[in-house]
Amino acid sequence: MRISELSTKTGVPVATIKYYLREKLLPEGERASATQAAYGELHVKRLGVIRALVDAGVGIAGVRKVMAVLDDPPQSPYDILGAAHGAVAPPAPSGLDLDAAGALIERLGGRPEACFPDQVAAIAHALATLDRAGFEVPPAVMTAYLDGLRSMAAAELAATPRESLEAAVRYVVLGTALVEPLLLALRRVAEQIAAAEQFGPTSRE
Amino acid sequence: MRISELSTKTGVPVATIKYYLREKLLPEGERASATQAAYGELHVKRLGVIRALVDAGVGIAGVRKVMAVLDDPPQSPYDILGAAHGAVAPPAPSGLDLDAAGALIERLGGRPEACFPDQVAAIAHALATLDRAGFEVPPAVMTAYLDGLRSMAAAELAATPRESLEAAVRYVVLGTALVEPLLLALRRVAEQIAAAEQFGPTSRE
Repeated sequence: MRISELSTKTGVPVATIKYYLREKLLPEGERASATQAAYGELHVKRLGVIRALVDAGVGIAGVRKVMAVLDDPPQSPYDILGAAHGAVAPPAPSGLDLDAAGALIERLGGRPEACFPDQVAAIAHALATLDRAGFEVPPAVMTAYLDGLRSMAAAELAATPRESLEAAVRYVVLGTALVEPLLLALRRVAEQIAAAEQFGPTSRE
Repeated sequence: MRISELSTKTGVPVATIKYYLREKLLPEGERASATQAAYGELHVKRLGVIRALVDAGVGIAGVRKVMAVLDDPPQSPYDILGAAHGAVAPPAPSGLDLDAAGALIERLGGRPEACFPDQVAAIAHALATLDRAGFEVPPAVMTAYLDGLRSMAAAELAATPRESLEAAVRYVVLGTALVEPLLLALRRVAEQIAAAEQFGPTSRE
């Protein structure tokens, strides 16, 4: 199909498609003539993923990294996860005290030295930020966080598709990038429900 | 203290403090003379909170909203939560299909019509984004998300400080804004640990 049809089919404006082509997020179409290229189902699918990542707040650099993982997937499932996290997670500053982060990782059942260093640093950065604001997560709340996140991760892993490497990569990469906004939105509503249960009839009823 | 001392004490550059003053994130100091203002412990504490919010990725507009809630707190705990969420959550587009979001809210034990409309829309937006990418959260995983988030919210609510309205507001507002990056970072590591357990010795060991 021509770029105009690709635009109609996906709802993405032609100018935006051209931008993604220039940024190499989308592979070139097949040359049909000197001035025309032909696009296929691959482009439709790929545009859907790009738009979803952008909607989820992933920047162009992050989208490019996600696409690179999807195009050239690592062979080990563990490395797929590392690539997915590296593509989506914001870089953490270095020089942080990693002890408190390491203690949380041990409580999650892991060993800090076996985790991706960037992700250990991300926990340390988040803890340092809380500390700077003089905010302490109450111990019982931290325990609830760790328990909840451990069960969620176990369920995610158990549901990883096994039929092909491509399916597994897609699941892990998009499950990391696109599910984060859903979890944060669900968390806010879960807090509202808990508050409404505790405080009885509210101003919204 | 003078602005230079405030800078030394907090590690925030004088130019940045002046920017926060211009943006009204920080209240003016007491006029000591025509050209000098005196700053106190309130400013030190406030700067710590502002820096933490900025570190956590909250934009200046969001910081201003958080400060407005801290300065003029709603009287009902439920409205404090709404104000906190409104300050931190990105605005969700309108015109979304809210049925699927409503069904998830019911599974969390709530009634969609009793929840803040913006947060219902945020769930709907996240679901639409997943849909656009052709990504489906497996049913068992969604159940794990809902169970995990419900326990976390219950623990957070049980630990809300009761000694003063100010303490409760601070806990809810900062617990919403600053804990999100911690949860996302912990989730990534929990996924790594689950993957390592399942796939045995990995490339990082």
